Formats: sequence, C-alpha cells, structure tokens
Amino acid sequence: MDRIVPADVPVEEFDAALQKFRILLGAEHVISEPEALTEFDDPFPTTSADDFRPGAVVFPETTEDVQELVRIANEHRIPLSPVATGKNLGYGGAAPRLAGTVVVHTSRRMNKIIEVNEKYAYALIEPGVTYFDLYNHIQEQGYNLWIDVPDLGWGSVVGNALDRGVGYTPYGDHWSWQTGLEVVLPDGDLLRTGMGAMSTAKTWQLFAYGFGPYPDGLFSQSNFGIVTKMGIALMPAPPAAETFVITFEQEEDLAQIVDIMLPLRIGMAPLQSVPVLRNIVLDAAAQTKRTHWLPEGGPLTPEVIQRMKDELDLGYWNLYATVYGPPEQIELFLGMIKNAFSAVKGSRFFTTQDRAEDTPGSHVLHDRHEINQGIPSIKEQQILEWVPNGAHIGFSPISEPDGAEAQKQFEMVRNRSYEYGPDYAAQFAVGLREMHHICLFLYDSADADQREQVMALGRKLVEEGAENGYGEYRTHLALMDQVMDTFDFNDNALLRFHERIKDALDPNSIMAPGKSGIWGARYRDAGHHLPR
Amino acid sequence: MDRIVPADVPVEEFDAALQKFRILLGAEHVISEPEALTEFDDPFPTTSADDFRPGAVVFPETTEDVQELVRIANEHRIPLSPVATGKNLGYGGAAPRLAGTVVVHTSRRMNKIIEVNEKYAYALIEPGVTYFDLYNHIQEQGYNLWIDVPDLGWGSVVGNALDRGVGYTPYGDHWSWQTGLEVVLPDGDLLRTGMGAMSTAKTWQLFAYGFGPYPDGLFSQSNFGIVTKMGIALMPAPPAAETFVITFEQEEDLAQIVDIMLPLRIGMAPLQSVPVLRNIVLDAAAQTKRTHWLPEGGPLTPEVIQRMKDELDLGYWNLYATVYGPPEQIELFLGMIKNAFSAVKGSRFFTTQDRAEDTPGSHVLHDRHEINQGIPSIKEQQILEWVPNGAHIGFSPISEPDGAEAQKQFEMVRNRSYEYGPDYAAQFAVGLREMHHICLFLYDSADADQREQVMALGRKLVEEGAENGYGEYRTHLALMDQVMDTFDFNDNALLRFHERIKDALDPNSIMAPGKSGIWGARYRDAGHHLPR
Repeated sequence: MDRIVPADVPVEEFDAALQKFRILLGAEHVISEPEALTEFDDPFPTTSADDFRPGAVVFPETTEDVQELVRIANEHRIPLSPVATGKNLGYGGAAPRLAGTVVVHTSRRMNKIIEVNEKYAYALIEPGVTYFDLYNHIQEQGYNLWIDVPDLGWGSVVGNALDRGVGYTPYGDHWSWQTGLEVVLPDGDLLRTGMGAMSTAKTWQLFAYGFGPYPDGLFSQSNFGIVTKMGIALMPAPPAAETFVITFEQEEDLAQIVDIMLPLRIGMAPLQSVPVLRNIVLDAAAQTKRTHWLPEGGPLTPEVIQRMKDELDLGYWNLYATVYGPPEQIELFLGMIKNAFSAVKGSRFFTTQDRAEDTPGSHVLHDRHEINQGIPSIKEQQILEWVPNGAHIGFSPISEPDGAEAQKQFEMVRNRSYEYGPDYAAQFAVGLREMHHICLFLYDSADADQREQVMALGRKLVEEGAENGYGEYRTHLALMDQVMDTFDFNDNALLRFHERIKDALDPNSIMAPGKSGIWGARYRDAGHHLPR
Repeated sequence: MDRIVPADVPVEEFDAALQKFRILLGAEHVISEPEALTEFDDPFPTTSADDFRPGAVVFPETTEDVQELVRIANEHRIPLSPVATGKNLGYGGAAPRLAGTVVVHTSRRMNKIIEVNEKYAYALIEPGVTYFDLYNHIQEQGYNLWIDVPDLGWGSVVGNALDRGVGYTPYGDHWSWQTGLEVVLPDGDLLRTGMGAMSTAKTWQLFAYGFGPYPDGLFSQSNFGIVTKMGIALMPAPPAAETFVITFEQEEDLAQIVDIMLPLRIGMAPLQSVPVLRNIVLDAAAQTKRTHWLPEGGPLTPEVIQRMKDELDLGYWNLYATVYGPPEQIELFLGMIKNAFSAVKGSRFFTTQDRAEDTPGSHVLHDRHEINQGIPSIKEQQILEWVPNGAHIGFSPISEPDGAEAQKQFEMVRNRSYEYGPDYAAQFAVGLREMHHICLFLYDSADADQREQVMALGRKLVEEGAENGYGEYRTHLALMDQVMDTFDFNDNALLRFHERIKDALDPNSIMAPGKSGIWGARYRDAGHHLPR
C-alpha cells in the first residue's frame, strides 16, 4: 500500500513532524504504516479508494499533549483532524475530510471520567468516554442518574454532542445539555468556556453561559479547535417510565400521524421526548436479514411488505416513545396519547406490558424501552446485516413537522431510493418544532456499483432537498462541501462568516481542513471548495 | 451643555458621518443636540457626568438602513452601539460603553412583528418589539400561545434574549429559546443563522442549529454585530396554572429552603420553572416606600423587619413559583411542593385561591401569578420609589444551588450593603443547576455620595465575589471591564479569544467598543482595558 500525505506537505516535512509526535507521545501511540491506517479510513466507503485515508493517527493522553501536537503541526503545517471515538460510521467514522491528515484520536487514552456529580446531575468527561463507559461508571457508583443515549451506545458522549447528535429522553438534544468546554485552539492556546473561564469558580458544569459572548456553539460541527473536556448535564432518574408502540397499517396514514403528533409534542407533554416513527423496513432490518424475506433478491413489493407486517405483527408505520414521571402522570399521559392516535383507522396501541420481551412485535419496542431509559444498546447494529457487507449512509433533511410535508418527503425519498437501488428504510422524528427525516441507505460496501449508486443518490437528494427547502443537519465527509453550499443565503454569508473566524483562529489552516465545508485560506487558495 | 464625540474621532469627521446619517434616515431620525441626548444617557448614573453619554442617536427603519449606517460608520471610523429599547435600566439603559458613540436605536421604527405562527409556536420579530407589543398582538389574534416575560414587560424581547435575561415560565431561559438570527456584521455584511442560511428553507424559526458551527451565542452579550431580526419560540398555553407563595419566618431558614428546593427543581418537576425566593425588604419595596416604615430614616433594624413581616403577612423569605398542566397534574405537583417545604418550621403555604387579590400578603403573589403566565407587568417598577429619586444597580453572582453557599452569599452581601449604605433587597433564583443571587441596590440618584457609595459597593462585591468563586452573569457598563477581568483562566484566554474574533469581524473597531469588556484593536492600542 502507498503512503498518503497531505498533497501540499513534502514527505520530509511530514516525517519530521511524525518524529516529533513519537518523541512526545511514545512511538506506540503514533500509527503511520499504511496497512494499519486502513482501520481509520471511512468504514463505509462510498467513493473510490483513498479520498479520506489518514496520513497517520496519534493518541494523546493529556490536554498538554494535544496542545503540543498542535504546536508541532503548526510548525510543520501538518493538518490535524480530531476524532473522539470515530463511531459515527455513516458519516465517515474516524476518517478526516482531507486525505493525509493526521487524526488526533482520543479514544485510547483520553477517556477519563473526571467527575460525576449526583447532587447537581452532571458529568465532566474527556472525549474518549463512551456511553457504555459513563453508564457503567454511574451504575457502579449507584448514582440515581440517567444518561441520554443515541441509537447505538458505543460512541463518544462528547463526540456525539459536538456533532449535535440526538437521543430520546427529555435530554435528547445533546448539544443543548453540554455545560462547558475545554478547547485547544488551532494555535495551541487553551480555552475554557462558561464559568470555566473564571479560575476560582466552582460552577463550570452548572452554568454554561458565563459572561460575555457565548462561543460554545462555534466548536460544534466545526474545525475551530479540539475539545479536550466537556461537561454534560445528566437526567435525575424519574420515578418511573413506560414505553409504547402504536402501529399504523397504511403508508398513507403518515400525514395524519404527524399532524396528531405535533400538538402532543410541542407542549413537551404528554409526549415528553422525541417520538420516532419508523417504517416497517427499518423495523424488519433491525431483526432480520433481507434474504429472510427475499431469498432470491428482488424488490420489496407490496406483497413482501404485507408479509413483513404480518410476521412481525407491526404496521407500515410504527411510533415509539416513552413517558416519564410519577405513575399517576404516566397513566394520565399514556391515556391522552392513546386517545389521540385512536383517530387513525386501524391503529393499535401496545406498552411493554402488553408485549412482553421476545413475543411478536416486541423486538424494537423493548430495545427502545432500554434506550429511552438511558441504557446504552448496540442492538440496532443488526441493521447492517440487512445486506451482505452492510454499510449505510444517511440522508437526514430537516423540515416543518407537518403531515403534508412528511408525505411529500416520504414519496420523494422512496421514489429516488427505488430509482438508485437501496430500500427505503427510514424514520421520522419530531424534535420539538422541527422534523428530522432520517433515511438509512443500506448497501453492499464490497460492490463498487452499489457504492457509486448510493453516493449518486445522496448527491441527488441533497440537491433535490435544497430545491424543496430541506436542509441537512449533519452529513458524510463526501457531501460536506455540497451541503454547506446549499446554505446559500446572501452569497453563502454563513460560510463566508465561518471562513473569517477560521482564518483568525487558524492562520496555518491546520485544523481539520474541509470539515463541514469550511476550508482555511491555505486550502481555499489552493482551489478547495468553490470560490464564490 | 457640551457636545461629546468619541475621543479619537475629529469633530469634522463625526459631523460628516452625521450628515450622511441624516440623508440616509431623514433628519428627524438623527438626534445630536446635547440636551436631547440626555434621555439616552445612563438613567441611573453611578459615576460622575459623561462617561456613558452618546454622541448621537439614530433610528433606522430597515435592515438595509442598518447595513448602510454600518458602512458609513466604517468609512468615518465612528463607533456605533446598538440598543433595542434601552430598558435594561440597572445596566446602563440605552447608553453606550464609550462616551460619544452613536446609539443605533431600534425602538422607534424597527418594531415590526413579522410573523406569529400558532401551529409551530414561534414569533419572528424586530428588536424594537416589546413584551407588551408581542403580548397584545397575540391577544388580538386570539392565538393560544404564551410569551415568557421578565419582571418588567416594557423592554425588548430580542434585547432581553441577547442579554441572556430570564423569565419565570418553563420558557424562562430566553436565550435557549431563540430560534435564528438576522445580523448585520460590523462590515455591513448580512448573516442569517440556522436554517435562515438556506434561502429556500421554510424552517428558519424551527431549527436553530442548521448545519456546521452554530454561531448564534457569539451575538449574545457581545459587540460582534447588530441583530435585526430574531425568532423566539413561544409556549403553547398549558391547560391551567396556579401560583403559590411559601413564607418562611427566619433569615436562618435560607440554607434549608435552598436545599429542599434543588431536588424539586433539577428534575424539572414538580417545580417546572424558576422559583424565586425574595427577602422581605424586596417584597416591602414592591408595595411601599421606605418612609412608610422609617419616616425619619435610619437603618432597617430587626424591629422594623418584624413590623414588615407582620403588616405584610409574609416571612423574612418568601418563595414564589407556578405549576402548569392539566388540573390533576397541578394538584399532584402542588401537594409534593407543599409537603416538601412543610419541613421548614413556621413555613406557611398559600395559593392565589388562599390569598385573593388585595388581601394582605397577596400583592407580590398576584403580580407573580400574572408574570408567570406570560402577562407583561410593570408593577415591580414601584421598587424605584423605595427611596427618593430611586435608582438601582444589580449585583447578580452565579453559584452552586446549595444552602450553605446561599447563606454565605447572603451574609457577605448583606454585610457589605450595611457597610456602604443601601438596604439588602434581594432574591435567590434556582435556574436549574445554578443559583442566581439577584441583589438590587436602591439609592437616591440625586445624591452624589450615594452614587459613589453604590458604585464602590458594586466594585467591592465583584472583587469579593471572584475571590469566592462567584461570577457575574451580566453587569452595568461601569463594571464590564472589571467583571470580564475576573474570567481569568489561562491569562484571560476567553477575552483573548473574543478579541481575535472581534478583530477579524470588526477591523475598524466600530461596533460597541468595550461592551462586555471587549475592545477592538484600535481601542486596545489606545490603552482601553488593560493589556495582559
């Protein structure tokens, strides 16, 4: 295998920096052999070969290590790309946007749980801490606290929040619950935000705003620094919780379901957290392989879909959510929800009491019941076995939480899916005022045609989405430039603003070039991204 | 009266800019006569003379007007200071930090309610819109929506959110409910954040994060731009609401009260929003003059305090809050709260049903009942009549929501108040994980000695607070440099970070020099703020 170094960095310069990294961290914490680096490449490749292969991976242990790495990188003009655990597989994993970039990987050694405070319900952690790590620590200590977990619990708590990922308890908007950052800036300087900026304060994890401009959001989905510590609010365990599924028979029920859901959700009661409305294909993929339904392959015809609904005892759409509080409140809220959705003809309502574990129709319900109580799970990983060498990329447009919009998007994405090949496996989630339509395109990553088709589908949908007013909230490395370009108000004023901040903080353009479509002056001058 | 222009701007240059402002806006929308400008000076002066007197005030009508004002200001290097309605009286009102700055005042003409959306529960407004304006509009339209109001409803919805002000419903953290900004940058460029950055999107007010770095927080408590439009989420009206007061007899009850309050609040139930714990002096000032208690003047002795408690039928501490939801839930939550606080010896619990309007002990209770249901009120204005020519400045340190901390702060501030003169009139508010101790120092603004003393008290408390780990969340113009200096981690890394952003966005340092302690390069070079 060939070595890859950043296109504008001479190999000798790159090697000189690597040598300094080895002296700083120990040779065992610097990986640079091409074969060993494939582990850190895009795990679900959608394009050919080496677009996102790192030039090296380094594993710092301390904030001071990270500061020194950044100083060396500036000296040699080596691009660095921070990654927490690299488990955001559908978005590129640990891979950097620019081939040859050195990945600063915190999973191996920067995974300390610095503090969990039961009284004030927060944790202060390093970026390598996973949901499982934090959950297990809290259980061991016997704290009466919940964490909020995303669908798969193997990733980083910090990384997920910084990427503005979501979960499903009332603490599901992870970014909104971060409570203070420590950041190594692109010149190696060290910033603490909020009350952490006052050296005497005991309130760093208690009051994120602090005094003066509130800069924390700049470090989410960005390349303006390396977050080395983060506070995260934890949820005091509620007295009780119950999860339910409501099954809806027909594809055409979608608009009515969404229109019933919004008023129940927007007041934060009785739907106290994000409900997810999953189609039958997603639920089938969570527990079976595609060959179970179609041993010889072929399209998911209405007949196949009907077999899925019958065998899994689910509807075409299936709504999952959890209610929390004293038992009286749970009873009250479940009654309100059941009553509201009973207006949809043919709908059926089941709690975890109605469908015990391992009975038909219970698989996803009980997995959600765990996740929605903050218990990390990796059961949804099963989805990757839907097809051989299973991989996925996501398309997650944001729209109004409106029934007609949902129906329009459903048809748009499903039709394009048929056209380009993948099945339509998707869910709608009503955050509060916005709707995420989270589409997973599953494909065989060993099949070059499928890889090409799925990327073409992604590009087409980003374009078509923007024409219809739908913006992506997060995207794969390969689509970052295109997505950022769709944010086009006033000659891409938002990107131009970010570029000014970028150049002020990172004069050598060393920090994660191209992340979220933002390139420093050095790369813009070299023709990266489009000049506007 | 003498004219005041910025110290480093020649009068001819200033006048040339004024002339262009007049041509742009019409002469009637540019005020520059010294006598007319006193209206825009610090309404509660704490220092001598003209430290914060503007050089002119201009009233733009449109975003384009603001862009053009900014371009002219850059051409002539004229500092501009945006102000929404200028009603943050205890922090300097409409006055700029730097004497001679031109105030860009949006109250008179940029006060359009662009949209109120009942289905999605938000408003899109200009900065001149007051709480009363928005409330009245919603009532006229008959929308089933609540706004969240601060103690006095005469101010700007946008200005309060940008200053990170608070209210008392579940939507009380105003900044966290903003949903997208339109900002004129210091070079006249126009930015829209979140989904507003996508010209085709219909979700500007529905999803604040958008894609890529989330910069909105940079525009709060800052001098990085002029916000010309803001989205704000509104609260769907709950089925019902009830407000209560719990009276506590003794000063020494404070620690126990705070320690009972935290667990009821941190789970967001049964205390669903911010409770306020007010001392008897604050409640007395809300409905009487000081001379009512002490016709001849003199200190508030224990005997006087006892008379206040008896006559007003309140305790030394009085806790006010509201619960929301279906009647069953209100019943449940009120019972939990009453039961928890009954542990405090001598405490008494009353709802608005127990104490009808205009009965003893009902005045603040019923004012809170309105405010906590999103009805703007200016009754608390009465506080300014506590002393002749009444004025106040605030000291609002942030600390852990802990009983012992509350007791320590209470003693620290009360003792310093006695020492410097003002009465101790204050409240504790437990936001969620943090406690605000909001102290109002009331003084006679016509009395030069009192002015001097109250400012000396403020300076002393900021210093003493920082020594004890308490940071201010907001402050008066005169204290901004000092407060920012207390955020001293890593050689004031936070301020140094802001200065880099400032210089990148505002190369001529024209935007609100000195706001929050941030001065552009031009003013730092001239010796403003301390070089570090």
